[in-house]
Amino acid sequence: MRLGAIAVLAAMIYSIPAVALQQFQNNLMPQPAQITVDSGRLALDSTFAVEVPGVSDARLNAAIDRAVRRIEMAAGLRHAGRGVASATRIIVKVDRSAGLVQSIDEDESYSLTVTSSVAEIHAPTEVGAMHGLETLIQLVQPGTSGYVIPAVTIHDTPRFRWRGLMVDCGRHFEPIAVLERTLDGMAAVKLNVFHWHLTEDQGFRMQSLAYPALTAKGSDGLFYTQQEARDLVTYARARGIRVVPEFEMPGHSAAWLVAYPDLASGTRPDGIRREFGISDTAIDPTREATYIFIDRFLTEMAGIFPDAYIHIGGDETPAPDWKTNPRILAFMKTHDLKDNDALQAYFNTRVLKTIARLHRHMIGWDEVLTPGLPKDVVVQSWRGEASLFKGAKLGYAGVLSAPYYLDAMKTAGEHYLADPLPSSSDLTPEERKLILGGEICMWAEHIDERTIDSRIWPRTAAIAERLWSPEGVRDVDDMYRRLSPVSIELESLGLTHLRQRDAALRELAGTENIEELRTLASVLEPVSFSNRSQAQHTDQLTPLSGFVDAVRPDPVERHWFEAAVKRFLTDPKGDTADRGALAAWFAALSAAVAPVQQQMAASPRLAELQVRASQLPALIAMGQQAMQSLVEGRKVDAGWKGRQNQILEEIRKPSALVRFNILEGMSDLVQAVSE
Amino acid sequence: MRLGAIAVLAAMIYSIPAVALQQFQNNLMPQPAQITVDSGRLALDSTFAVEVPGVSDARLNAAIDRAVRRIEMAAGLRHAGRGVASATRIIVKVDRSAGLVQSIDEDESYSLTVTSSVAEIHAPTEVGAMHGLETLIQLVQPGTSGYVIPAVTIHDTPRFRWRGLMVDCGRHFEPIAVLERTLDGMAAVKLNVFHWHLTEDQGFRMQSLAYPALTAKGSDGLFYTQQEARDLVTYARARGIRVVPEFEMPGHSAAWLVAYPDLASGTRPDGIRREFGISDTAIDPTREATYIFIDRFLTEMAGIFPDAYIHIGGDETPAPDWKTNPRILAFMKTHDLKDNDALQAYFNTRVLKTIARLHRHMIGWDEVLTPGLPKDVVVQSWRGEASLFKGAKLGYAGVLSAPYYLDAMKTAGEHYLADPLPSSSDLTPEERKLILGGEICMWAEHIDERTIDSRIWPRTAAIAERLWSPEGVRDVDDMYRRLSPVSIELESLGLTHLRQRDAALRELAGTENIEELRTLASVLEPVSFSNRSQAQHTDQLTPLSGFVDAVRPDPVERHWFEAAVKRFLTDPKGDTADRGALAAWFAALSAAVAPVQQQMAASPRLAELQVRASQLPALIAMGQQAMQSLVEGRKVDAGWKGRQNQILEEIRKPSALVRFNILEGMSDLVQAVSE
Repeated sequence: MRLGAIAVLAAMIYSIPAVALQQFQNNLMPQPAQITVDSGRLALDSTFAVEVPGVSDARLNAAIDRAVRRIEMAAGLRHAGRGVASATRIIVKVDRSAGLVQSIDEDESYSLTVTSSVAEIHAPTEVGAMHGLETLIQLVQPGTSGYVIPAVTIHDTPRFRWRGLMVDCGRHFEPIAVLERTLDGMAAVKLNVFHWHLTEDQGFRMQSLAYPALTAKGSDGLFYTQQEARDLVTYARARGIRVVPEFEMPGHSAAWLVAYPDLASGTRPDGIRREFGISDTAIDPTREATYIFIDRFLTEMAGIFPDAYIHIGGDETPAPDWKTNPRILAFMKTHDLKDNDALQAYFNTRVLKTIARLHRHMIGWDEVLTPGLPKDVVVQSWRGEASLFKGAKLGYAGVLSAPYYLDAMKTAGEHYLADPLPSSSDLTPEERKLILGGEICMWAEHIDERTIDSRIWPRTAAIAERLWSPEGVRDVDDMYRRLSPVSIELESLGLTHLRQRDAALRELAGTENIEELRTLASVLEPVSFSNRSQAQHTDQLTPLSGFVDAVRPDPVERHWFEAAVKRFLTDPKGDTADRGALAAWFAALSAAVAPVQQQMAASPRLAELQVRASQLPALIAMGQQAMQSLVEGRKVDAGWKGRQNQILEEIRKPSALVRFNILEGMSDLVQAVSE
Repeated sequence: MRLGAIAVLAAMIYSIPAVALQQFQNNLMPQPAQITVDSGRLALDSTFAVEVPGVSDARLNAAIDRAVRRIEMAAGLRHAGRGVASATRIIVKVDRSAGLVQSIDEDESYSLTVTSSVAEIHAPTEVGAMHGLETLIQLVQPGTSGYVIPAVTIHDTPRFRWRGLMVDCGRHFEPIAVLERTLDGMAAVKLNVFHWHLTEDQGFRMQSLAYPALTAKGSDGLFYTQQEARDLVTYARARGIRVVPEFEMPGHSAAWLVAYPDLASGTRPDGIRREFGISDTAIDPTREATYIFIDRFLTEMAGIFPDAYIHIGGDETPAPDWKTNPRILAFMKTHDLKDNDALQAYFNTRVLKTIARLHRHMIGWDEVLTPGLPKDVVVQSWRGEASLFKGAKLGYAGVLSAPYYLDAMKTAGEHYLADPLPSSSDLTPEERKLILGGEICMWAEHIDERTIDSRIWPRTAAIAERLWSPEGVRDVDDMYRRLSPVSIELESLGLTHLRQRDAALRELAGTENIEELRTLASVLEPVSFSNRSQAQHTDQLTPLSGFVDAVRPDPVERHWFEAAVKRFLTDPKGDTADRGALAAWFAALSAAVAPVQQQMAASPRLAELQVRASQLPALIAMGQQAMQSLVEGRKVDAGWKGRQNQILEEIRKPSALVRFNILEGMSDLVQAVSE
């Protein structure tokens, strides 16, 4: 989609007439628990001073310095300093220092009061104050001359205690710089758990001094040193984020076994596994040596990761060896373990002893929930809400992940509406307390360090709101209105989710002339993980440099288009801005086809897009004809709708690993026409 | 400029009809010393194998792995592996390992022969082989199906031994990740010296264990640890790049003196200096304690930086204390030092003793060239070619920097034509040998980690060609033709010089709708360092988040426009693609004005641009009227040209820290019209 045309739309929907610059624009994401809009505003037109009258520890001071710098950059001015006299002041008052290790029960609340001379944050600890600073930054808006912070009173506290993002650094390694900017983005939208998936069949990413072969043989040299991990934990803590490390066992463990094949149940990997999917290798749960190894390893890791939780994975362990290896079968008989599930439960119970000795709690994926699992274990639900609720009814605390898989390539709106604990649920009040929150999952089969940001952001911001804000905050249109500025805020933190697309398109086309390609890219998005897996064989070494890797899931234009169609349909005969914008946009799309096809002919990596480019004219004609019919109040010829639906069906078929994101809007237009 | 319109131009100038895909496209930058184009091509349509039949050390292997991965990403395929059978092979043969420390006299030559089945690089050492790999990557081009490497025979060796880039990390700190990608870019265009400007009045950036207060008090916490510095030296060496550290003395040393005020000549700084410009503080050259300090410090640094050269700065030291401090005056009298220059020469001689003891050579800026300077010292010429040649005539080796100051915001073409050693120079053959090469300088008053890339790249690639390729390679149009793909290659290495502009524009406008703003941004560029310094007071803490920081120096559209005007003027009445493209482009620029003005009204940080936006209509009208007159062969009204020249003069006046880059092209159009 050509933004020039969409700008007409956007101008109408979002742009702000000068007079409205004095009004409060509620762009906050996540929305606070309570907000009252007062009259007036704090003008950031020359400078401001900062006061820290309460607790003033190093973590809080660093957070204030970062926030003040962001306000300076956003408002294009310099602050006056700490504790100096100034007509305008930002005051951050904290009652007590939070503990060294952030607890799941940390008080994250804060209040924020802005008047025409003072913006004051007050919080029990610096964790709440950091959230308050992020809110303050999001409040900065253009005024008639310079920037302002509107007068508001906010009392805020999160709905859920566990608001996480998991990043799989096993299948593809992510450099520390990527993780740091991810943490910056998480802090901006008030997420508080970074779940670091550190081991996979495809790579063991965490240095062990006790077992150096884990990375020497299992990582291709791509791993985090202990110092880097410690520094990342510090970096996260400085932003109010806990780091929960995950070491997958007994399955997804080929990389452990490459290094230490004696740990295997029978099948030994012949090298780091490049293929994705479920592997047959598994750690042997029947040997004492296994538990000595794990005990020593986890003890070492506990010295690096102070969080109260250690994630042991535990998912997808078919372990065929457990059904055939005579030694293992004999062990199962001796210990009265009737099947693989029972053997894995035995394994978990043994590992739990180490974790308990380390004064930590265990968390694992769905599959750990087997009869006899101690109630202290937290279950991360990846197979659906049902298993989360089932766990709660059995007395297990749980974290919901199933509806927050970013590689499903769903829209922000779909993720947004998935509630971990709808008021309609039949859980008892006690059971409801066991739902700790949710975790967004970024699995890494199809991402690398160049593409990860556009897969995580900005959709993660919408889910972050689901986990922080009151259940009733669920207006999808309003969420998208706010997602756009928050997306830009996230880029200002160094994330690359918007800019990466054009960079990738320039590489694909071999030129800076990508206006039309960008137009095409805005109506296409990557297919889901499962669709891509069916259509293309990828493994860990596949170059992720195709068009599918360039385009974004749920680009901003998709919702704009659907919203414009909806509004147009309420008054199709009116001379509305939407009508003009849609027409202009169809024309721009149409004009893009020929130049893009020319570029495809000269760029083999774009060639597979030919199918999609050739489908576009019929799609545009469909929209134009539907609009014309609706504008003129004329019926279309008999059979027209059937033909259009056929075209839509044809276009829905997989091709080039990308799908059109405008089919819903088009379909709305077609169905509105009378035949 | 709107690329959609320019695309018409570009399509004509640069795009490749399918039939031409079989032809060799010489996109190499720098151009090799010798190239013969053969018939045929190596097809990269399925896979290829790699052979390393000669020396195969870790550095070479890592370089090959990186290069192979880039070819895989560019061609969208996987290679077959090392030493396996394949119809197509890349062979890298090296005769001997280069030394541990890269010498200024390193043999950097290589040859590269591509046939339909083999691409073979042959080099004396891995340094040449690395250059050959970069050439190989630049040879990859689209074919009719998949990518190809055209059959060529290349014999290549650099014209100059010293091809450097200096980055000032003192005035603004640059994170290691920025420096790493800078080194990647340097390697891609065969630069071989990274001159690391580590100390400034505004910050001491290198950790010293002997003198920890240097960074504890002089860096705001923004410094490189010794481990980071060692790792960066290793990173550079892995890419065939020497690292020359610079520790400025006796001037530009406020940060030393903040930490160790006893070193001062009298005036003591009252904190890290935030103001730019020349300061009055200087290290005291009259005390033995000074030399003990410097000796111990440089000895420590020599353990981190293995290069044969240590840069001591030495520029801009007015040192008024040396004219007034009675103790210093007495010292000068005792030692028969008649003025400040003589005292600084004494200082340099003393420091040189330490450097000689460390078996290193000294390099310094112009000002070190004073009577009595030992011949072993290299002079880096920042005040002009004259001082370089003067040095050579006196027997001093020199490196030219004066014409390569990136903050002068000159065009790539201007930098490109500045030759360190034109054949017209009157130096003797012996004196010519003393011109070691050139160094590009990136001073950091007005850059930060977000903007540095667009200031360095892609212009630096053009200068790199000046320093590598034969003197006769100086066709500016052809340079620009090749600069465009090399710019995209540089972005694929992680540099952000192209993508940062749009990200910054989104932040400034607070929206993703930046099509028109981008159009405006493409005809504007930052004013020079000196013009900005006159127009705006900046110091180290000024937020660099304005429009001037977003726009690029010499964007690709500037040369395209001027070239299109030149071609149009050769046949103004013809129905040429240039004529159409120029007209379309004027229309696009014109259409951008109103939407951009609307955005400016809602974004205070864009407001200062109003002047430039309001000048654009007259500028476009000028171009349109001139074209119409030329196309129709009609004379314009008397006085028209005078009025247009007045408009151009008015528009040349400073405003908003940015200048139009289309005034030359417009002026060409105006002057061509008959009155």
